Amino acid sequence: MLNKQLKWRYATKKMDPAKTVPEAKVEAILEAIELTPTSSGLQPYEVLVVTDPKLRAEIKDVAWGQEQIVDGSHVLAFAVWDNYTEARVDEVVEQMAAERGGRTAAMDAYYSNLKNSYLPRDAEENYEHAARQAYIALGFALAAAAMEEVDSTPMEGFDPKAVDEILGLKERGLRSVLLLPLGYRAAEGDWLADMKKVRRPRDRFVRKV
Amino acid sequence: MLNKQLKWRYATKKMDPAKTVPEAKVEAILEAIELTPTSSGLQPYEVLVVTDPKLRAEIKDVAWGQEQIVDGSHVLAFAVWDNYTEARVDEVVEQMAAERGGRTAAMDAYYSNLKNSYLPRDAEENYEHAARQAYIALGFALAAAAMEEVDSTPMEGFDPKAVDEILGLKERGLRSVLLLPLGYRAAEGDWLADMKKVRRPRDRFVRKV
Repeated sequence: MLNKQLKWRYATKKMDPAKTVPEAKVEAILEAIELTPTSSGLQPYEVLVVTDPKLRAEIKDVAWGQEQIVDGSHVLAFAVWDNYTEARVDEVVEQMAAERGGRTAAMDAYYSNLKNSYLPRDAEENYEHAARQAYIALGFALAAAAMEEVDSTPMEGFDPKAVDEILGLKERGLRSVLLLPLGYRAAEGDWLADMKKVRRPRDRFVRKV
Repeated sequence: MLNKQLKWRYATKKMDPAKTVPEAKVEAILEAIELTPTSSGLQPYEVLVVTDPKLRAEIKDVAWGQEQIVDGSHVLAFAVWDNYTEARVDEVVEQMAAERGGRTAAMDAYYSNLKNSYLPRDAEENYEHAARQAYIALGFALAAAAMEEVDSTPMEGFDPKAVDEILGLKERGLRSVLLLPLGYRAAEGDWLADMKKVRRPRDRFVRKV
């Protein structure tokens, strides 16, 4: 059932600008993102749901003119923490304690150890680790969109500094790392729609040991 | 349906060593991984399916003694390309041309441009980009396992150089980046099994613009 839908999905190149993804389907995709596991439960990113046409037009202009950004009805922008900080980690621990019946010695030891490891590191190293977590969420979002028969196009091809500027991310300690337009494939004009999905032969991809 | 299963899943801490995941379910998870989209279609990683008990015991020893590695029945190890090379890119392009009715000028221009961009870069920068792609596949694998009601535990906590040694990855130009034991939760002894799943409040995680 999941794999049938994963075969149905593809990186849609031409979306129908007349069609809008219903909010209930957007919500199902956001819930899947929320359920995504992340390293030590930190969820080191935010998701911006961009519908404003003017903002989407600005983003398109710094994303090689990719039309799905304006032809779809929603763009999910994954905005990653620019660094791990004490305040960010503490917020996670406090919420965990509040929802799981109080602090425990094991919890305190775990996150104290984590801070000793993360906080002295370069911001760039921490950002790279945080960015990877957003890619797990992209996987969940793509799977959820496919299950909802919503088309989507994962994108790394944009100027991240320019998108940060458009969405006001830098001053909030965030960096844009992925865009995911949501919409519906156009009936015509998508060069990729009828192409065979190509994957490396199984014996060059999976090895049993 | 998907989200119900994503709520069911959790990072299983104690697996039942008496239970084995059926091969058909492992195959469904591998197929989901195979269907994962990656940047420019490069699929810059391999998946090792480790069942050998001796190898799994060795991996456990360099992974903080995490018992799921030996108590589950399978470990998926995601092994990422240590760099983008001309040969690796060309193999992708040739297969794509063979399966999509021949080379096109657009295809040649796209991948020629990609090589001009990737090949002069540091190996480390290319590896980081490749590693991110494996995290999308982790997302698909976790979703597929949940749909199959197979338990799994995503792991970054291991000594990657030691795992590379155990699995013979370095000489093949690969670097271990993620482990995913597969199995079934034990009836007793899993401290996380009954804990509430904690996520940041929606208004601190999703922003609509």
